[in-house]
Amino acid sequence: MLSESEGYDLLKGYGVPVPQYRIVMTPHDAADAAETIGFPVVMKIISPQIVHKSDAGGVVVGVGSREAAVAAFEKIISGAKKYNNDAEIKGVIVEQQAEPGLELIIGGKTDPAFGKVLTFGMGGTLVELMKDITLRILPLDEETVRQMVKEINGYPLITGYRGMKPKDEEALVSTLMAVNRFFLENENVVEFDINPLRLYEQGALAVDARVIVTDGPVQEEARPERPPVPMEYFNPRSIAVVGASQDSTKMGYAVMHNLLHFPGQLYPVNNKRSEIQGLKAYPNITAIPAPIDLAVITVPAIHVPRVIEECGAKGVPMAVIITAGFKEMGEHGKALEDRIVSIARNHGTRLIGPNCLGMIIPPRGIDTTYVHQSPRPGNIAFISQSGAIINTVVDWSLSKNIGFSAVISVGNQADLDFLDYIRFVGKDEKTRAIILYIEQVTDGKAFMEVAAEVAKCKPIIAIKSGSSSRGQAAASSHTGSLSGSYDVYMEAFRKSGIIAVHTLTGAFLAAQMLAHRKRYPKGKRAVVITNAGGFAVLSSDYAERYGVEMVDLPKEVIDEMNEFLPEFWNKGNPIDLLGDANEKRFEKTFSVLAKHADLWDIAFIVGFPNLVLNSEQMARQILKFSAATENRLVATLLGGASMDVGREMLKEHDIPSFEELDYTYRVMGRVLWQKFRVKAPGLL
Amino acid sequence: MLSESEGYDLLKGYGVPVPQYRIVMTPHDAADAAETIGFPVVMKIISPQIVHKSDAGGVVVGVGSREAAVAAFEKIISGAKKYNNDAEIKGVIVEQQAEPGLELIIGGKTDPAFGKVLTFGMGGTLVELMKDITLRILPLDEETVRQMVKEINGYPLITGYRGMKPKDEEALVSTLMAVNRFFLENENVVEFDINPLRLYEQGALAVDARVIVTDGPVQEEARPERPPVPMEYFNPRSIAVVGASQDSTKMGYAVMHNLLHFPGQLYPVNNKRSEIQGLKAYPNITAIPAPIDLAVITVPAIHVPRVIEECGAKGVPMAVIITAGFKEMGEHGKALEDRIVSIARNHGTRLIGPNCLGMIIPPRGIDTTYVHQSPRPGNIAFISQSGAIINTVVDWSLSKNIGFSAVISVGNQADLDFLDYIRFVGKDEKTRAIILYIEQVTDGKAFMEVAAEVAKCKPIIAIKSGSSSRGQAAASSHTGSLSGSYDVYMEAFRKSGIIAVHTLTGAFLAAQMLAHRKRYPKGKRAVVITNAGGFAVLSSDYAERYGVEMVDLPKEVIDEMNEFLPEFWNKGNPIDLLGDANEKRFEKTFSVLAKHADLWDIAFIVGFPNLVLNSEQMARQILKFSAATENRLVATLLGGASMDVGREMLKEHDIPSFEELDYTYRVMGRVLWQKFRVKAPGLL
Repeated sequence: MLSESEGYDLLKGYGVPVPQYRIVMTPHDAADAAETIGFPVVMKIISPQIVHKSDAGGVVVGVGSREAAVAAFEKIISGAKKYNNDAEIKGVIVEQQAEPGLELIIGGKTDPAFGKVLTFGMGGTLVELMKDITLRILPLDEETVRQMVKEINGYPLITGYRGMKPKDEEALVSTLMAVNRFFLENENVVEFDINPLRLYEQGALAVDARVIVTDGPVQEEARPERPPVPMEYFNPRSIAVVGASQDSTKMGYAVMHNLLHFPGQLYPVNNKRSEIQGLKAYPNITAIPAPIDLAVITVPAIHVPRVIEECGAKGVPMAVIITAGFKEMGEHGKALEDRIVSIARNHGTRLIGPNCLGMIIPPRGIDTTYVHQSPRPGNIAFISQSGAIINTVVDWSLSKNIGFSAVISVGNQADLDFLDYIRFVGKDEKTRAIILYIEQVTDGKAFMEVAAEVAKCKPIIAIKSGSSSRGQAAASSHTGSLSGSYDVYMEAFRKSGIIAVHTLTGAFLAAQMLAHRKRYPKGKRAVVITNAGGFAVLSSDYAERYGVEMVDLPKEVIDEMNEFLPEFWNKGNPIDLLGDANEKRFEKTFSVLAKHADLWDIAFIVGFPNLVLNSEQMARQILKFSAATENRLVATLLGGASMDVGREMLKEHDIPSFEELDYTYRVMGRVLWQKFRVKAPGLL
Repeated sequence: MLSESEGYDLLKGYGVPVPQYRIVMTPHDAADAAETIGFPVVMKIISPQIVHKSDAGGVVVGVGSREAAVAAFEKIISGAKKYNNDAEIKGVIVEQQAEPGLELIIGGKTDPAFGKVLTFGMGGTLVELMKDITLRILPLDEETVRQMVKEINGYPLITGYRGMKPKDEEALVSTLMAVNRFFLENENVVEFDINPLRLYEQGALAVDARVIVTDGPVQEEARPERPPVPMEYFNPRSIAVVGASQDSTKMGYAVMHNLLHFPGQLYPVNNKRSEIQGLKAYPNITAIPAPIDLAVITVPAIHVPRVIEECGAKGVPMAVIITAGFKEMGEHGKALEDRIVSIARNHGTRLIGPNCLGMIIPPRGIDTTYVHQSPRPGNIAFISQSGAIINTVVDWSLSKNIGFSAVISVGNQADLDFLDYIRFVGKDEKTRAIILYIEQVTDGKAFMEVAAEVAKCKPIIAIKSGSSSRGQAAASSHTGSLSGSYDVYMEAFRKSGIIAVHTLTGAFLAAQMLAHRKRYPKGKRAVVITNAGGFAVLSSDYAERYGVEMVDLPKEVIDEMNEFLPEFWNKGNPIDLLGDANEKRFEKTFSVLAKHADLWDIAFIVGFPNLVLNSEQMARQILKFSAATENRLVATLLGGASMDVGREMLKEHDIPSFEELDYTYRVMGRVLWQKFRVKAPGLL
């Protein structure tokens, strides 16, 4: 950790306003220094051995005269000697005493996954209590810095709150920019905080600075460059199952069983039997009289190195290692894993896993896993760091009639990792939405680049587990306690165009929301149209809760609607067309809104089962409306089976339709978070 | 609004510490007063015409001497004269200048539904920004006041934060108790705030007090006493439908149609036809040659008074008025509604509605509504202020196989209201859980009494709409802006044993959670047992998010588990039994936990589809576990159809089982909110 004065000098070099100070060795110099700086001053002992200066009587504030300075110097020195006679005294720092001002904090930390992060928020002693902090991953441009300043809850205290004079926002912005440069350019600075930074009507002052440096590396090393994985590796014409079994309790049996539908060549490998599940078996992979595009390995860990050796010799381009018992089992397993990786690398064989379920590519009839039943083909790619979650999602998808373009279990990611899989499904033309379950990302910067690239054309939705202190306790540091690394993940996701959600249900709902070609709404201004008073009220509640902005209808629009709506309609947004609203009433309302499409970005249509209007009529009008505008439409056809016809009609046209009203707004809230950084407590 | 000194005197009378002050008419008296009070003092003009004292130069602070006091007096008087020559000057108040201290706010307001409410929180200028406010409905006991104090986020500032000396918590408590008495005993005080109340290491001081009084009534009058509704009114033996129709587009047709299954006598009333839907029709209700227990009225509003008159003449004890066009249509409708109410009262006929769907009592084959299809019999009572929501919920319940003991649409509540219906389903032995959809409650105190009584034996779950500023804008007042009346509802619900939720889905999930005879867990300490690593991490996340407290396993328990768990188990809570966990492993783990049931209150068991353990084996062990402990068990069998067997087994024994892991903890979070006031952002 740098000394106070070292910290000041370093920051000052980048244009961060710090207090004037002098380091003095004699009472007389102290008096001179204080006079030059200007009274009052603060005086503190400088000694590597004395950390808690005050305990040693090493701090005197409000020094108001030369005499006081002399007295203070002597008091400090004698106090220090009394406190610790062996303490090496490097002098006394005489420091300008800062005026009171608005107390802010600027912090920096180095995230193990995403590197240097800048935090900013309300400072002073209240900081932990208010938790009014925002963060960004470096580097920052000025626009981002101005965003940060505006997004803290305490911002009104800067612009002038309750008649207080406004503070110097420009000085704050330039200080943040300076700190950004300081943190970027000093690689050895791993953590710091300026707390408080005092902000005045004119200018600012960093009153206290803690700067921690290191010699060693702080961030996990970026992984060595690995060659890209050719697309055709995920489209094998022949597959060998090493460890294929006839014993239905064995994994080698389940895997074979799930691969029986593979339209290409399938070769069981088993050194005890000549036939497995009706197919000719071979004693080892090299014995197979044909090229093998993919090897699936289920033999015990101890045999895996040999098998990989054979795959290499056979020229197998890629192997799925389902077997567990590697890195996840500690040191010994780690060594074994390193061994198979180097063997594979020597032969140019790529590896999926180990300790994984491998991959399912329903459109190609590939399923290397032991899930109960293979999922249906579809357009969602699901990539997961948990095998149990894959089992669960696949099983669940069958009952919900959800299909997949790919399901991948990444396992220990010894070779192929999230980046390779995201690149693959990003290029795969069957895939229209990507869902990730992530426990940890290594090489976060590369992850962000790849994700950002793919997210431009396909929505990526990610569940990041480990938000709880229990889950991430280890990771948190001093500044981390204000913005745990989970928050860094959230910011990394937001920055890379990923929609962060907290639940599997939420992930699939978000994918559904973005399935339509219109993708993201162009803004967050919403109108709600419904025939149910109760749901109109709830819509207002949910919209506000999840950060959806309800627009006020201008008089002209209300007048146009008065033309055909019953006298007692609410003349506001949500637009309540009343329970007796028929198809015509919806049609006319929609056409007015389509005409005024510039007033809003999203239309939420909420219908319920009733005798006047059935779901088919409702859906018909919604489809007409959607065709008539480029704005986003979201439907909520509430109720049970009697609404299915309408829901199906909408689904065919990718118009998202939800069965729980809360979800409609909750999901949109997350979409708006990604696109417009909407702050909303609504989790999904 | 009372003057400052009047406010001080009033509060002082109840033991609220206020600044010393004198009101003086001359410079000399000002000097004497200042001297007696002790320098420095604050001096302010007293004049009904001068509201903004500072603008009139009517405030001088830091008066430090007799001379300064004289000068200040003259400055204030002359300033006031200059500002407004006609202003009646009642003197100058000389006031003790309070030391700086911790700034808190104590506010009071009168809620239209629930009466007087006390708010407490962090005060000073930051108050709006921090929104760190808690509230209670009067009267308060000391325990509640101590709760309030501890509940605000700023509490650490009171107990001594970051080495600051602790503040005088006892002085704060006694001040709050004093304010409580003051607000209770002064009926004409409708609103006040003490902002700031300065809290010191010794004592406290109310530095500014705004007290607003009224002569008129402020709270909606409690409704006139109405006689209780006899239970048998909800169990009619004969029903007449006035307005019964043969025309399938008419409401009178749909209602008749839904009543055709009624096992008692059903009489259509129609003055044009002699037969309706196969039953003999009568020209009017009096023409029916038999007693009528219930009349269902669908004729146009204008005819309703006559029909009620006839019902009275016929001696019909209760009538459901489905017809709309009353209070909800403004003044004229209100008058019509008042008329039918007085007619009914004269005859002793009770009314459901008007402007409602009436009631469905599936176990008795009663359905006076026009829903598509009558719901199944079951044990949930659903009472709603929105007809559309009833249509929706009934339709939805059919596809989810959920049954009801009663479904009631309250309409305008001209006679029978929420209280009567809650009393009914509270007594009804078929009803095991009660769900309310509430837009507004009149006579909140009575509502709380009735709900509290019923909630003792049956869970009540309520959705209160109108949480958004859009929904409740009207209601909010100055203090209200800190704690809108929605917050008062939440507190009223909590106090009366009601579980507040935000969604229909959530309401039914909560009912499911409390269906088990064990009802509420005895505490909030939880253990999680799972065979899925991924769901273990997510469980920790969700538990923390929703206020479920994860306990640490003591060494002895871990040792006992080491006996039979694989070496690499995580040795913590969540307890991860690993993917290869078989039935035996779960059984042993459960028996260890049952043995140590004193360490935890809730066990969450999370299972997923896999080859080693099927849902039936899992459910069997869960049931054994549940039988072995009085603690609450909650299961989450994730996945699709392959888990249904287990889910069914659990359902038969009322063990709640959820299909989305997030729900499990989210629902428990709301249950804990009700029982232990657990604060959690988790909405449901």
